[in-house]
Amino acid sequence: MSTKQRRSGGRTALPEPVAGNGLLHRRALLGGGIAIAGAMGASPSITGAAAEPLAVDPWTLEPGSNSKAYELPSRFEKNTVRTLSNPNGEPRTQHARTPHHLLNGTITPNGLHFTIVHGGTPDIDPDKHRLAIHGLVKQPRIFTLETLARYPMESRSYFVECGGNSAPLFSREPLQGTVQQLHGLVSCAEWTGVRLSTLLDEVGVDPAAKWLIAEGADSPALARSVPLKKAMDDAMIALYQNGERIMPGNGYPIRLVLPGYEGNMNVKWLRRIKLVDQPAMTYYETRTYSPILPDGKAYRFFFLQEVKSFITHPSVGNGLTAPGYYEISGIAYSGTGRIAKVMVTADGGKSWAQAALQEPVQSKAFTRFRVPWRWDGGPAVLQSRAWDEAGNVQPTRAQITAERGETKGIPNIAGFASQHYNGPTTWAIEGSGQVKHVYA
Amino acid sequence: MSTKQRRSGGRTALPEPVAGNGLLHRRALLGGGIAIAGAMGASPSITGAAAEPLAVDPWTLEPGSNSKAYELPSRFEKNTVRTLSNPNGEPRTQHARTPHHLLNGTITPNGLHFTIVHGGTPDIDPDKHRLAIHGLVKQPRIFTLETLARYPMESRSYFVECGGNSAPLFSREPLQGTVQQLHGLVSCAEWTGVRLSTLLDEVGVDPAAKWLIAEGADSPALARSVPLKKAMDDAMIALYQNGERIMPGNGYPIRLVLPGYEGNMNVKWLRRIKLVDQPAMTYYETRTYSPILPDGKAYRFFFLQEVKSFITHPSVGNGLTAPGYYEISGIAYSGTGRIAKVMVTADGGKSWAQAALQEPVQSKAFTRFRVPWRWDGGPAVLQSRAWDEAGNVQPTRAQITAERGETKGIPNIAGFASQHYNGPTTWAIEGSGQVKHVYA
Repeated sequence: MSTKQRRSGGRTALPEPVAGNGLLHRRALLGGGIAIAGAMGASPSITGAAAEPLAVDPWTLEPGSNSKAYELPSRFEKNTVRTLSNPNGEPRTQHARTPHHLLNGTITPNGLHFTIVHGGTPDIDPDKHRLAIHGLVKQPRIFTLETLARYPMESRSYFVECGGNSAPLFSREPLQGTVQQLHGLVSCAEWTGVRLSTLLDEVGVDPAAKWLIAEGADSPALARSVPLKKAMDDAMIALYQNGERIMPGNGYPIRLVLPGYEGNMNVKWLRRIKLVDQPAMTYYETRTYSPILPDGKAYRFFFLQEVKSFITHPSVGNGLTAPGYYEISGIAYSGTGRIAKVMVTADGGKSWAQAALQEPVQSKAFTRFRVPWRWDGGPAVLQSRAWDEAGNVQPTRAQITAERGETKGIPNIAGFASQHYNGPTTWAIEGSGQVKHVYA
Repeated sequence: MSTKQRRSGGRTALPEPVAGNGLLHRRALLGGGIAIAGAMGASPSITGAAAEPLAVDPWTLEPGSNSKAYELPSRFEKNTVRTLSNPNGEPRTQHARTPHHLLNGTITPNGLHFTIVHGGTPDIDPDKHRLAIHGLVKQPRIFTLETLARYPMESRSYFVECGGNSAPLFSREPLQGTVQQLHGLVSCAEWTGVRLSTLLDEVGVDPAAKWLIAEGADSPALARSVPLKKAMDDAMIALYQNGERIMPGNGYPIRLVLPGYEGNMNVKWLRRIKLVDQPAMTYYETRTYSPILPDGKAYRFFFLQEVKSFITHPSVGNGLTAPGYYEISGIAYSGTGRIAKVMVTADGGKSWAQAALQEPVQSKAFTRFRVPWRWDGGPAVLQSRAWDEAGNVQPTRAQITAERGETKGIPNIAGFASQHYNGPTTWAIEGSGQVKHVYA
């Protein structure tokens, strides 16, 4: 289909499939004269419905509600919330997972950004909070929020992902769950703050320094070791999240953002950075984030969140209603850099179509991918596979479980095979339009 | 200062000023060995403060609060809210303004996106809401939310701005106000939805159609005329705002987004699009958005939000605390396309420095600009001026008031000289560090 045809004003048929089970060429997304309704089949909700007389709904018949100082979602979106693993705040870790199957776009709104907290969320007074940088430096310094605001800032979209995100996919049998349940421990926001390298230049780094220890002001004083090289590269002392001050559960008022590195290292409520000559082997380094491999050894450190993707529409709990045209859509990201390519299959890997990537594609941020699809109403097996600009590709599930192991049921965090799953996620579409999690 | 110098590990002095009153070259923002603390002078809060022993604050001494299903800002951010013109919901228009002087980055978080509502915010049940497209079409159709979700989508960052934003700057005497008070009726979000052209292709546009009338489901049934050309260009039927469903005050569940066009035309709670052969001359077209010009005539239509910029840091209510280094930062945008250049003066226009633009620079979206500055503690007069990729530049205040007029005090919306101010905003820094709004 040429541009000329698309601009001719007349409607043309959908492009021919480019891969099995109805996957279409991504140029169909450009619109311009494509007869999608035809492709949707005879859905009565959209074809032949008379537009007039148009019913006048009750909410049009009376004045609405007053504007709020800080607006919240509609009451009809009460299910679009984070799921909480520990809603009563028992003295253990709390997870709050992002409902990706109910969202769209490339940004996670602040109210729904995932959080994991190990000792609750501290109630920090920003006027009293301080950030100290000390250790192997020429001149230790203490920074107030007011002082930090004077330094050069940058605004960058970065994903943050827990090392344990997607852990259920290490289970030998596919566990049924929504994208929120399986992959809800990753989110993406525009972070604004000061480059850590700017502050390290301020204090003057001693040549003996090779690592730093970042410590939070939460009650467990969560601390992680960070290579100095990463700190001098793209690490950020973040002060704002999607334009406003960082949310309390995400580290208000100061968070260390280490783009593409394990979520737990992005220390929240940051109070202290100590430059040292070797890593500290802190609690989370020796316990949770050193899972044991099948050969009995363990990674000493595994910082990078590798290239990954999953389909959000359709997905478990987000099924199909009738045969015809749909858009397959999902999220891809890589801790190494930009997403270069996403391929999608509808026939369990026998054939693949290249997805369209939403511009601008940003480094270490969510990239929304989309593929046009004509579902014929029969069984289909959907999966996505992403490549990043460095040439890294998602491993198959067989590859990653051979390397890291498998578990019976949900892995025990900090146990065997619980960390850094970046293999594929596969959805089986049943004739009813329902979606199941399968391995393929 | 060469890259080699910057990478040498040693700290170097700030670059020499490139414009009067201490404006520095934007390469200083790249960091890497720039002695900013030195440039900040002897502020005791940051120099010579011992990093140890570091006080342990009360919030670290006990477990924090539980995670929430939908997170909200810290209680210490209670002033970072929208200001409401009509908090008790009297039967007239309600404005909620974005606090730009307290935000940073390029995204407006959904809770703080500006809104103007003329009959309150309707409480729409998305399962019952419909969008009808009819009039001069081949096949009228009614779309449900479920149906719309099947069409190809896109995600784009776009600003939305009220035609009356910045109206106080038509006042003959400069009115004192924060950026929120002067420019709070513009915001920027990532919108996700279906191109309107896709749906118009579905219904088949009759060649006689030249305009469409878009109507909302609020109680005034707000309606605006839109040229068909714009509808077929980049207009979007938006379903998501920064990843989640659109906020109630911004049009939940469906909003027409007309990138770069007057906010009032971006019809919220969209229920109906009727294709017609001429504009309808609706209430808002004949009353509010046709202000009278000095020569007694009026624009019949003035759709475009032209190239504009303003400095948010520092600004009124956001002053300086001590001489030394600061970052001047602000927002630029154009309804025509991308921002190409922003120039900043610190001496009331005698000399100018080019600002750094935060990448990626997106079309018809906020672009954050930044300029490094060494304030010597004396009076300074700050102003920004933006150019877009089409070569358009912000007019001077003298130019725009010669064309549109001036008022005594705050303009009466819908009255003389009340619309589409895109001239500069000037901040006078006093020796105390306080900021005043002036004309220069």
